[in-house]
Amino acid sequence: MYMKKLTSQVVMTYDDPVAETKYGKVRGLKTEDTYIFRGIQYAKAKRFHMPEEPDPWEGVKNAFAFGNACLELNTPVAHDNDIVQHFYYPQSERCQVLNIWTKHLEKDAKKPVMVWLHGGGWFSGSATELIAYDGENLAQYGDVVVVSLNHRLNVLGYLDLSDYGEEYRYSGNVGLADLVAALKWVKENIENFGGDPGNVTIFGQSGGGGKVAYLLQTPAADGLYHKGIIQSGGYLGHGGAEAHKHNREVSKKCAALTLKQLGIGEDEVSKIETVPWEDLAQATMEAIWLLREEGESVSWEPVYDGDYFMGDPVDMGFRKETIGTPMIIGTCFGEFSGTHDRHFSETPKALWSAEEADAIMRKAFGDKADRVKELFAKAYPDRQIQDVLFLDLDFKNQALGYIKGFAEAGGTIWNYMFNLETPYECGTVAWHNAEECYVFRNAAYLEYEYIPEVSEKLEDEVSGAWLAFARNSDPNCDAIPEWPACTKDSVPCMCFDKVTDLRVDHDKELIAEYPDIEVPEFPLSNKMYAFYGVKPQE
Amino acid sequence: MYMKKLTSQVVMTYDDPVAETKYGKVRGLKTEDTYIFRGIQYAKAKRFHMPEEPDPWEGVKNAFAFGNACLELNTPVAHDNDIVQHFYYPQSERCQVLNIWTKHLEKDAKKPVMVWLHGGGWFSGSATELIAYDGENLAQYGDVVVVSLNHRLNVLGYLDLSDYGEEYRYSGNVGLADLVAALKWVKENIENFGGDPGNVTIFGQSGGGGKVAYLLQTPAADGLYHKGIIQSGGYLGHGGAEAHKHNREVSKKCAALTLKQLGIGEDEVSKIETVPWEDLAQATMEAIWLLREEGESVSWEPVYDGDYFMGDPVDMGFRKETIGTPMIIGTCFGEFSGTHDRHFSETPKALWSAEEADAIMRKAFGDKADRVKELFAKAYPDRQIQDVLFLDLDFKNQALGYIKGFAEAGGTIWNYMFNLETPYECGTVAWHNAEECYVFRNAAYLEYEYIPEVSEKLEDEVSGAWLAFARNSDPNCDAIPEWPACTKDSVPCMCFDKVTDLRVDHDKELIAEYPDIEVPEFPLSNKMYAFYGVKPQE
Repeated sequence: MYMKKLTSQVVMTYDDPVAETKYGKVRGLKTEDTYIFRGIQYAKAKRFHMPEEPDPWEGVKNAFAFGNACLELNTPVAHDNDIVQHFYYPQSERCQVLNIWTKHLEKDAKKPVMVWLHGGGWFSGSATELIAYDGENLAQYGDVVVVSLNHRLNVLGYLDLSDYGEEYRYSGNVGLADLVAALKWVKENIENFGGDPGNVTIFGQSGGGGKVAYLLQTPAADGLYHKGIIQSGGYLGHGGAEAHKHNREVSKKCAALTLKQLGIGEDEVSKIETVPWEDLAQATMEAIWLLREEGESVSWEPVYDGDYFMGDPVDMGFRKETIGTPMIIGTCFGEFSGTHDRHFSETPKALWSAEEADAIMRKAFGDKADRVKELFAKAYPDRQIQDVLFLDLDFKNQALGYIKGFAEAGGTIWNYMFNLETPYECGTVAWHNAEECYVFRNAAYLEYEYIPEVSEKLEDEVSGAWLAFARNSDPNCDAIPEWPACTKDSVPCMCFDKVTDLRVDHDKELIAEYPDIEVPEFPLSNKMYAFYGVKPQE
Repeated sequence: MYMKKLTSQVVMTYDDPVAETKYGKVRGLKTEDTYIFRGIQYAKAKRFHMPEEPDPWEGVKNAFAFGNACLELNTPVAHDNDIVQHFYYPQSERCQVLNIWTKHLEKDAKKPVMVWLHGGGWFSGSATELIAYDGENLAQYGDVVVVSLNHRLNVLGYLDLSDYGEEYRYSGNVGLADLVAALKWVKENIENFGGDPGNVTIFGQSGGGGKVAYLLQTPAADGLYHKGIIQSGGYLGHGGAEAHKHNREVSKKCAALTLKQLGIGEDEVSKIETVPWEDLAQATMEAIWLLREEGESVSWEPVYDGDYFMGDPVDMGFRKETIGTPMIIGTCFGEFSGTHDRHFSETPKALWSAEEADAIMRKAFGDKADRVKELFAKAYPDRQIQDVLFLDLDFKNQALGYIKGFAEAGGTIWNYMFNLETPYECGTVAWHNAEECYVFRNAAYLEYEYIPEVSEKLEDEVSGAWLAFARNSDPNCDAIPEWPACTKDSVPCMCFDKVTDLRVDHDKELIAEYPDIEVPEFPLSNKMYAFYGVKPQE
């Protein structure tokens, strides 16, 4: 899979480029100045068991094609491809694979390593799901080693069978353990791909941001990474320790119901390891539906066991072992509110007349309308006033909660917002994942996002800051204004936009006074159906 | 999905670009100078029933995302991605969709229309399966309207249930009827996309080439197209009329076995229309395996009924109604023999020493070795002598049989070979589908094929000839040497290569004297597992 128009012949001969790993040799390919290795197996695993080291091999294995994505409970549907452009890819339980983009194969190159953790909650997605994720441009521009990886998701990664015997003790966390295994592979092998195992940045978006946050709460991962970036991270704060513990109980209930649906008795639980995937998926979905009738919802994320996984830090406390990890955290202006979720009008918001905009805001905000408009105009003086209707507060408040806890515990953390309006529908607030193509320098491959000159400038700023952070543990660089870290009392926020600037606590009042608004009914995106355990619509 | 690096902002506003169709308005997008409409529904259909016109709609439908591919019996596997680069895409029975690339939306533009029929036999694939298929570069360079489409495949398209009632009379040909419906949609709507409904070229590769050949044998399609190109077309000649008729019997046997596997009695056959796809697919696979035990193999292609489909022309005769259709037909040097099928050595053939090459040829050709080498050197003086081991004769002989019959019946047909050696493994003979990226001008997106300068030159030649044919019903153009059509006695062959030249009957003696050679065992590619009804391997 190659998105870029080639300008030179790809090198992919009989014995070049070949790199050594702990388990055997791999043969990749080389574009103009970047080596690409795809689909390298970093672990093997039996279903519901912890990952193990892969089997060694003789000779040279081809690493030309991406490896399998993890199986998803629902099949993908084509119109998920609107707005966020996808690659669909074959799925399998054998999904412990990683990809590498690097400009060096010399052992002494010791370039910063950036390990990408894909989004899609902990239930869907892959390292190849989005066009935005392709690592070549970032590796080439930044002279860093980019790694992306797949790991176990949904029922395969987070079903808590620990009630059924010691061998399932960690079944509710094996998908998280895959991440640890991948980071261990990076530590042990990345030198052969020009990387510095002593300088590893983990970064991810949405569920991938949650993965970064949770790895800091996973003792087995300590020492395998050195800094982290949480882009629009989900799963930050579950509403306290009790809610967090409750999630484990739900996973256990789901396990019991799934076994029952499959007709597997308590004395023969190991049968669940070999039932066909289709049957397991169907039984799991039925378990989810039954739980929903009881008002319970399976979250498909690592389960808090106080052992392998120490729990969401906002609920269970930040670990002192990792509080020294430099962090960046941030969100997009609109996240899910801009495109799918808020249908105030049939006309795109950018084309509303002043009267129409005013009427909609008055209806939404009631007698608080004037105050909210005033505070919004102060925080975002450069925007259309109706954008206030599409401002995300969900991810923002999760991020602010994380920042507060992290800074209070003594950690160093920087905050950003990605605010660029996309050209879609004549102007749409930045949606969930809009910043990714700027991190990876792939904006020009996304037809819903690319704006000539603006995109290039913003790629230099966003990727510039991310690369500086990967190199120096500090995102400050020539491409952006000075960017101070947060304190427990103050949140300086780098606002990436057509004109990027730093704003300090700029939206504090607005957030405090933003009322609960009546949001018009919106159709669930098909992606979300899988999350909620509902069958996708055509 | 966009493969090209954008250089200008995509136009995709609230009401532009919008085109009218018979059923309602569609909104696409516009790159620099090309309009793109994706996933337009051209028909609807009940399972095993003939396609009908789609339902009309109010307002404007988005045509941003590609539509579903047809369901395949086996799930795809990632390492099919070696050498031939794939897009994987969501699959559904609702697969009657087409895509359009055009530089014009004016009704009076009347540009030549080129309708692409994808390969993968009649059992797999889609208009979005291969990177090579993207139509933008061809439409942009040639100022033609490129259309590609999906239609029903495998059991969904070609299971003959006609023994079970009048309503299933055509069930063995509904996938072919989808093609006819798509061509009817083109005839009725393409003017609104700048196309000339009076000048439609159908072209396709492998199974897609077979589709071109079979459409000429389908009375319902008469008048819906005006010329055809068969690239490495399969299914040309089944070994005579009896073999051809036999295939229908096998499809009927498969239908009976599938019903039996599903537990559906003869008095309740309509139940097969609503069983879940997974069950239908499983029952079909079991039917295939049972038939294989009897030595029968289901071919998943239109069934000869002497009514809707008049049968393979080589077996059943060319139809006088369509013999006036100008045609191009050709093959690749190696087809399936170059990469997967012939493992004579662990070392790539390009690196064999003269001694090694000689020893392998002596072993393969026995006492005919010297004569075969002499004839090969005469026919292909510019090649490594060991290439003779990888020369395709299967597709070639099918093409020659088609040419002979077509010319004898009075038709005009041109012949080509695509001979460019790819850079893969230091030099690999042109494989099955290698020419597609040259037709579509997408070579620079394929890492296994692109050769700077050579690829651009060859794109101009191949696409130049295809475009001239689409415009003038004659492939001659400035980019290539003079190219005469075939006669029943002589086959002038345009040999596309680093240096493209015309050779007349150049390989006639070689083909006549080429012995049956002992081909080393080779593993089936995973794609082929689906065809043979075997489960894919990981």
